[in-house]
Amino acid sequence: MKKETRTYFLIPILIFTGMCLNVHAQHQHPNHSHGEPVQSQGMASMDADAQFIPYNFERHAVGDNDILIEILYSGICHSDIHTVKAHWGTPSYPVVPGHEIAGRVVEVGKNVTKFKAGDYAGVGCMVNSCGVCEHCLRGEEQYCDNGLKTYTYNSRDSFHDGAITMGGYSSNIVVSERFGIQLPEGTPLDKVAPLLCAGITTYSPLRTAQVKAGDKVAIAGFGGLGHVAVQYAVSFGADVTVFDITESKRQVAMDMGAVRYVNVNDPGQLEGLSNSFDVILTTIPYNYDMEMYIRMLKVDGHLIQAGMPPAGEYPSIDTGLLSGCRRVYNTHIGGIPETQEMINYSVEKGIYPEIEVITPAQITEAYDKIEAGEVQFRYVIDMSKL
Amino acid sequence: MKKETRTYFLIPILIFTGMCLNVHAQHQHPNHSHGEPVQSQGMASMDADAQFIPYNFERHAVGDNDILIEILYSGICHSDIHTVKAHWGTPSYPVVPGHEIAGRVVEVGKNVTKFKAGDYAGVGCMVNSCGVCEHCLRGEEQYCDNGLKTYTYNSRDSFHDGAITMGGYSSNIVVSERFGIQLPEGTPLDKVAPLLCAGITTYSPLRTAQVKAGDKVAIAGFGGLGHVAVQYAVSFGADVTVFDITESKRQVAMDMGAVRYVNVNDPGQLEGLSNSFDVILTTIPYNYDMEMYIRMLKVDGHLIQAGMPPAGEYPSIDTGLLSGCRRVYNTHIGGIPETQEMINYSVEKGIYPEIEVITPAQITEAYDKIEAGEVQFRYVIDMSKL
Repeated sequence: MKKETRTYFLIPILIFTGMCLNVHAQHQHPNHSHGEPVQSQGMASMDADAQFIPYNFERHAVGDNDILIEILYSGICHSDIHTVKAHWGTPSYPVVPGHEIAGRVVEVGKNVTKFKAGDYAGVGCMVNSCGVCEHCLRGEEQYCDNGLKTYTYNSRDSFHDGAITMGGYSSNIVVSERFGIQLPEGTPLDKVAPLLCAGITTYSPLRTAQVKAGDKVAIAGFGGLGHVAVQYAVSFGADVTVFDITESKRQVAMDMGAVRYVNVNDPGQLEGLSNSFDVILTTIPYNYDMEMYIRMLKVDGHLIQAGMPPAGEYPSIDTGLLSGCRRVYNTHIGGIPETQEMINYSVEKGIYPEIEVITPAQITEAYDKIEAGEVQFRYVIDMSKL
Repeated sequence: MKKETRTYFLIPILIFTGMCLNVHAQHQHPNHSHGEPVQSQGMASMDADAQFIPYNFERHAVGDNDILIEILYSGICHSDIHTVKAHWGTPSYPVVPGHEIAGRVVEVGKNVTKFKAGDYAGVGCMVNSCGVCEHCLRGEEQYCDNGLKTYTYNSRDSFHDGAITMGGYSSNIVVSERFGIQLPEGTPLDKVAPLLCAGITTYSPLRTAQVKAGDKVAIAGFGGLGHVAVQYAVSFGADVTVFDITESKRQVAMDMGAVRYVNVNDPGQLEGLSNSFDVILTTIPYNYDMEMYIRMLKVDGHLIQAGMPPAGEYPSIDTGLLSGCRRVYNTHIGGIPETQEMINYSVEKGIYPEIEVITPAQITEAYDKIEAGEVQFRYVIDMSKL
């Protein structure tokens, strides 16, 4: 009996050791000693010009509750551009952006239970929070009451000597296991990466508004966020209308299950839509005519703003339009438990963004294309090409 | 056995007949034949100067589903002033305002089951709606989809040849029984009258926001609506803060159970209140600094606008302030079932407005005093003094 038990213990240990060795062998992770800072290579912008160059830096050591992830893919989010280009105030340069991270766990702290080396893990917009306030306890870390929410990049990390965090355009990241998202084996990591921001940022408001089968839902802005939002809304059984400023994406929207595509530059297409929608989710990252959308809300309808315009460029509205409980609010990403739920749901339903994989050397050009509206949906950087 | 049954039938008939005779005898209701228009005396303003003079007019006949109410008390609402003074566009003069009506049923149509002559009945802001749309069926007649909602005064009555409705500053009113509110025997009719608008307009949003024990609730504007709102919020177990622009009502607010009274003209009193409230209900009927209030909302908080400023004078807001699901919306009075619920709740809890009873001859002066901020809370007109 005693001998048998020992054997049982040995088997997982052998498997575990084998996986670790295998991972290290395959990915040539930079060596570092336990407790030492982790060396990382990244792509940084040194100023608001957004010209990305290779940049080496140190990350904090892998603490007892931390995991070290080798980054395989990192999505490019419009927030990266806003940050680097100082649209939300001057960031702390050099900036290594990236909060749509998918990779593989290569080391775990001694208290870590959620991950083991070899697991796939994602990191989204946050890497820490107080963990004890009302909102953290509710799994809404993005609203941490104690102001200790730490964003994945360009954020002062109160848990590590106030260092400025560096994001996912890099070779690796160290994060508290609480902020690591489990990515099921076999998922397409390049397509999963953008879900860590674009996915949760659209999934969360649609859940908040309790979108259900038969609801009339509009998604305004059919870009990186919008085209994921459409897939969620369709999967919830809603009757989905897409609003965008181009004609070129019409067919993609219809193929994703939208019932209507409205080019807002053609006023004729807007006719008859007042008082039409239970929920309108706007994903537009610049100022826009929100009042036009409010007029399309039904009584009791929700207009949720998930896109984040530059500082001072959020739309202003006449609150006289909010009669009949037509409500307006902004959501901000989503908490960690809901992010895990979103990943599980997306994988189960096969909901992924449309992506174009680029190399780190192409980041600068990608930014220009995004701003010129020349990207279809989402760029994802293959970080193995660093 | 047969004889006994007959006797049972006779008793209520005799009582009923006696009551009718008694009512007619007591209140000298103007005679009219069934099917004929009803003669009514009122107080009207002939133009935007709001000088009230006696005015005789006809109401539509008592239809099979209608009740004729002898009006005993009629409250003066700020909406009356906005309407008469053309703040919401030019009304159809002469205007007989009044949608806070309490009185006694003096005649019922043959199909009426909810009332009998002698019952006390109230009428609020609406006298009809389509009755068959989604919102009417849900008891949200104020949002009638078919545009057939008929306000109690200055409204085109599609159910009666498009005549313009006349309100409660008058001797009587004819209304579909569906829009009559049952007033329990023994309630103080003068105090109940203002609940038909001020009560439902504040009860409904607090219910919509699901205010519960322990919630931090603010009531902005401590006037006709606000002082009723405070009583509801306190009765729901909330921790209630009052915002007003005067010092004079501080003690009244505290006596009603508020825990804090903030004079917004003293900036010092606003310190430390950011991020403080689950629900803020604004009852202010003019433009005001809504952004100041939004900054005091907690994450997930509701700012509900129940006051109705003049056209074009609703506050404008920067929607960048609505982060963290801080939501803004306007409610509009409340539906008929909820109005009945509000009356029953108010009577049960003893929630009534503070009133000053005036005669019809004092209406003109009362308007001036309300606009000058010289009324404490609510004027109620004793219509028996016509």
